[in-house]
Amino acid sequence: MSNSFVLVINSGSSSLKFAVIDSVSGDAIVSGLGECFGLPEAVISWKHNGEKVEESIDQPDNHHQHAINRIVALMDSLGFTADLVAIGHRIVHGGEKFTSTVRITETVTAEIEKLADLAPLHNPAGAIGIRAAMAAFPSLPQFAVFDTAFHQTMPEKAFTGAISNELYTEYGIRRYGFHGTSHYFVSREAAKMLNKPVEESSFISVHLGNGASVCAISNGQSVDTSMGFTPLSGLMMGTRCGDLDPGIIEFLMKKGWSQEKVFDALNKKSGFLGVSGITSDARGVLEAMEEGHEGAKLAFEVFTYRVAKYIGSYMIPLDHLDAVIFTGGIGENSLPIRSEILRNLKLLGFVEDEKANADARFGASGIVAKSELLGAVAMVIPTNEEFVIAQQSVELL
Amino acid sequence: MSNSFVLVINSGSSSLKFAVIDSVSGDAIVSGLGECFGLPEAVISWKHNGEKVEESIDQPDNHHQHAINRIVALMDSLGFTADLVAIGHRIVHGGEKFTSTVRITETVTAEIEKLADLAPLHNPAGAIGIRAAMAAFPSLPQFAVFDTAFHQTMPEKAFTGAISNELYTEYGIRRYGFHGTSHYFVSREAAKMLNKPVEESSFISVHLGNGASVCAISNGQSVDTSMGFTPLSGLMMGTRCGDLDPGIIEFLMKKGWSQEKVFDALNKKSGFLGVSGITSDARGVLEAMEEGHEGAKLAFEVFTYRVAKYIGSYMIPLDHLDAVIFTGGIGENSLPIRSEILRNLKLLGFVEDEKANADARFGASGIVAKSELLGAVAMVIPTNEEFVIAQQSVELL
Repeated sequence: MSNSFVLVINSGSSSLKFAVIDSVSGDAIVSGLGECFGLPEAVISWKHNGEKVEESIDQPDNHHQHAINRIVALMDSLGFTADLVAIGHRIVHGGEKFTSTVRITETVTAEIEKLADLAPLHNPAGAIGIRAAMAAFPSLPQFAVFDTAFHQTMPEKAFTGAISNELYTEYGIRRYGFHGTSHYFVSREAAKMLNKPVEESSFISVHLGNGASVCAISNGQSVDTSMGFTPLSGLMMGTRCGDLDPGIIEFLMKKGWSQEKVFDALNKKSGFLGVSGITSDARGVLEAMEEGHEGAKLAFEVFTYRVAKYIGSYMIPLDHLDAVIFTGGIGENSLPIRSEILRNLKLLGFVEDEKANADARFGASGIVAKSELLGAVAMVIPTNEEFVIAQQSVELL
Repeated sequence: MSNSFVLVINSGSSSLKFAVIDSVSGDAIVSGLGECFGLPEAVISWKHNGEKVEESIDQPDNHHQHAINRIVALMDSLGFTADLVAIGHRIVHGGEKFTSTVRITETVTAEIEKLADLAPLHNPAGAIGIRAAMAAFPSLPQFAVFDTAFHQTMPEKAFTGAISNELYTEYGIRRYGFHGTSHYFVSREAAKMLNKPVEESSFISVHLGNGASVCAISNGQSVDTSMGFTPLSGLMMGTRCGDLDPGIIEFLMKKGWSQEKVFDALNKKSGFLGVSGITSDARGVLEAMEEGHEGAKLAFEVFTYRVAKYIGSYMIPLDHLDAVIFTGGIGENSLPIRSEILRNLKLLGFVEDEKANADARFGASGIVAKSELLGAVAMVIPTNEEFVIAQQSVELL
């Protein structure tokens, strides 16, 4: 029996992540990264069987295409070409057009490009990756999996901004949400672990990575999420501010700050970096806090308090709660952050299982707290977006 | 025995509200309004014993001073001059300087003016009112009562923005909160009604008026509130957007919107007005909704859902919950809005007492719902900021 491998591609403006995923087990057979595209130091590297290979891309331009061509040769040399059944592309923005994974056609690619208005950095780069892959693998079916698609089930009261309705009809300004593939994956895994049909389960999924979002999931469907029209909103992140009093922007502009300076500050100098004053990295913040750094301690407290407040608010759209799910790099691996969030949930009855919480790391899943009051648990589930992309691609074959 | 009346003054940039408050009963003996200051149609009106009087202010300028002088003459003609024991000024912004009501001196007035940076429309107008009243009533002690003072007990994790710490140290950008006098008043009233010492009680106070904010009150102290650095943030309001994805502002500016156009839209064309497309008035929204207007229905749903989510999030800073308190024009009088918010709180165990909720209006207080789960109630308590201003002024005599 041959394998059922899917090549998963995540094409950015100056990089291209790829992986060969076994669509049955979810294992990553190969994972790689092309980066520094557009620069002389453009490079591609990959890991296979624990071995890492790096090659420079000695071409003046078209680095996305050259990277994909190198992947074709790599598949051949590893003998995987016959095992590849599909290519799955991670695409950031599907707008209101794409509510689930779709097979890519020229029309679909053009639609993705048309949505560039909503994701000016990501969608054009995603389309470049699609076109390069279509040229290099003309006979393989290809699929687009959207970060926004899972959230298209949000009710109108959750996705509508408290702003003029004309901003929605004219520009499409509304809550779209991101990290949909991750929230989808961990909610399915949580239902399995709790032995409940996902269609009857209620979760609050907390994806904490360099970007971060919370999602309320009722009967398997996203009903609210903290990221909005752009990934700048919602939770405090590595360098992003999350939700903000818009009056602060007006104040700074009246102080003479340019638009560029304001949004550079909010996108790149806020969050963990801005509050701690030292680093955007959660591990760095925790280390500095242990050494008594006050800014780091404050960043830790503000971050965990805000996550907990979002969890409290997402009780509202649910009719019961089965589990709070922690995932993403920080959610999976940072014991102090999970512990502090759980302490903040005391009025919701959560009591941490300290041993289980300490054990849930390095890829381990587990129940780390319980709330007798709500009949709910808190869990850690490592996310696996590439597995979802591979599975959903194979399902549509 | 003579009366103990306090003249309460709320001086705006083109208006001046005033009232004579019995500091024992809280009754408003006289209440009045000067308006259209700076225009030829400047006018002052007042109500006393159910009778309303209106007079034009036939002066080219200095309308604040002329209005105050007219109040001096009115006090004389009503025979109240001997009963006035103090003047209490409502001042919007006390920054971090003023944590409670203070007796006004020249230094205090200068400090209020210095805080104009944080409240450019309100504080200079407040100071004009103070100076006019000091000139007109030189022998009466005068006091400043700040909208922000009650919130100065918020912990650092609640008042710190997820932005660069330098914006706080350099410009004072942090969460200050407003409506403090209202949240203070209803929390004290709620403790009395529940027969609990306010120092051991926990409330979520929901002030819903044309401006709106939620406040978490632990042991009598504000520990978090939804308005932030400016009154544009937090809940959706009559014409204000509340919390917003800051990326929306960047998007609109990239579309060519000027700073003025963006903030005019967020301050004056958002909220009930923006979502419904028809009116900023909650009653108008409810009437249109009953007639089947879809925008009005959506505005109602978005507003109530967002209030409920704030209530959910303010479970986090509390160690128990005694009551959710509804106050302000909408909170006191809109049965459909309170009912919908309570329905949204079902996972927190709240069950509406339909009869009690219907009875709580036209100034009535009452318990309108209970949560067995949390051991908490929901109450309606009419606010009375002027009574607080009068009481706190008299306490400092």
